[in-house]
Amino acid sequence: MILNDNEVINYILDMKDLKIIQRPDYFNFSLDSILLANFLTINRTVKKIMDLGTGNGIIPILLTKKSKAHISAIELQEVSADLANRNIELNNLKDRITIINDNMLHYKKYFEDETFDAITCNPPFFKLDGNSAQLNNLDQLTIARHEISINLDGIVEVASKLLRNRGYFAMVHRADRLDDILSTFNKYKITPKRLQFCHSTLEKNAKIILIEGIKNGENSLAILPPFITHEGREYSKAVKDLFQGNF
Amino acid sequence: MILNDNEVINYILDMKDLKIIQRPDYFNFSLDSILLANFLTINRTVKKIMDLGTGNGIIPILLTKKSKAHISAIELQEVSADLANRNIELNNLKDRITIINDNMLHYKKYFEDETFDAITCNPPFFKLDGNSAQLNNLDQLTIARHEISINLDGIVEVASKLLRNRGYFAMVHRADRLDDILSTFNKYKITPKRLQFCHSTLEKNAKIILIEGIKNGENSLAILPPFITHEGREYSKAVKDLFQGNF
Repeated sequence: MILNDNEVINYILDMKDLKIIQRPDYFNFSLDSILLANFLTINRTVKKIMDLGTGNGIIPILLTKKSKAHISAIELQEVSADLANRNIELNNLKDRITIINDNMLHYKKYFEDETFDAITCNPPFFKLDGNSAQLNNLDQLTIARHEISINLDGIVEVASKLLRNRGYFAMVHRADRLDDILSTFNKYKITPKRLQFCHSTLEKNAKIILIEGIKNGENSLAILPPFITHEGREYSKAVKDLFQGNF
Repeated sequence: MILNDNEVINYILDMKDLKIIQRPDYFNFSLDSILLANFLTINRTVKKIMDLGTGNGIIPILLTKKSKAHISAIELQEVSADLANRNIELNNLKDRITIINDNMLHYKKYFEDETFDAITCNPPFFKLDGNSAQLNNLDQLTIARHEISINLDGIVEVASKLLRNRGYFAMVHRADRLDDILSTFNKYKITPKRLQFCHSTLEKNAKIILIEGIKNGENSLAILPPFITHEGREYSKAVKDLFQGNF
């Protein structure tokens, strides 16, 4: 495995069976990705999974721990897609995961509609505000974090097209976009089914939400128990369990 | 105070300063009403409050503990409105609270648009389903619990009309209607600002939500810390604090 300048190899979980190459100056995998991989519903009907905007491939790699499905993933940025490919090689997962380096809006070049049983996405969290024209520093981190190359509406539309009827779409996002997220899911016929709010402690507002919808599902939304990530300055038992690989 | 058949007087809170007449066979005040009265934002700008569908008047009575505002309340059902009036008398609050016995859809007979600084509502929780035609037992309890005389859309529309610009609307409702609630708030220009999920225990799904919006407010939704109502079979400290009158 060739490491480029500035790259380091980290273990993803405490079990040290999964590794990932990261660049400290790029967008590194975060707790969000682990929460999302854990959150996605996996059952026997899930044979093909897509991860939209996969970055360095962390979500597909984690999903191999809980599913035998074949996992496809799209990543716009060449540097990230290259990293994802090397991460898959590093973990001997080339027969399980396929990375496509393109804009997810071009999905039709690769897949027919209604191909996937489940789709995940850890999207750019931040809207472009009035000052976005001044965002001339379009580095990889900025693109990964802001709705520059695609926005929420575009992502959910692509997910809905790629998902088979009754397929699952799971996303992690900022809690303050809840309203927007629910209406966008509904717009593209992905019925919100499971919603979980992640609070750093029981006394704090939620920063992150996990949401899963079913394409053309029946209306019935469950608000799951809150996910608390910290106890004091330490990770909570719930997070430590995830790091132990208990997905 | 004349008590009718089947009526009993209960204290509302542990402090025993507020009393309420109830009929065990009618819709009695519940934890929901206490949670909602506690949840509503009260500040110096709030001088006129409206409680839509007040039932026996529990919410206005509780609000007198945290606000000096004059409180109006509308109740459709004559039996409940009569009970509310006697409850107000019982607590010597006739100069603070005014009850109107009418359908809230007829609000124009009593108030101009944009009259109120804050509005509360503990609405009927249940949608009418396909079997609603068979609901021939339209007793008081059925009307209070089901969307028979008014539905969510109608309530939020009335609230929006009665609310001054930047006024507060706070509601308690079932968690599985979250999606519907957010879109209805937005439809009538009440921007969702604060959302709290109430779970019986930390391990259980949320059954109840508290939501507050601001008429023509700016978009910024806060997901508050979860409200846990029980610890084992007992009420939680948070609920006990409310019963102690700590609003």
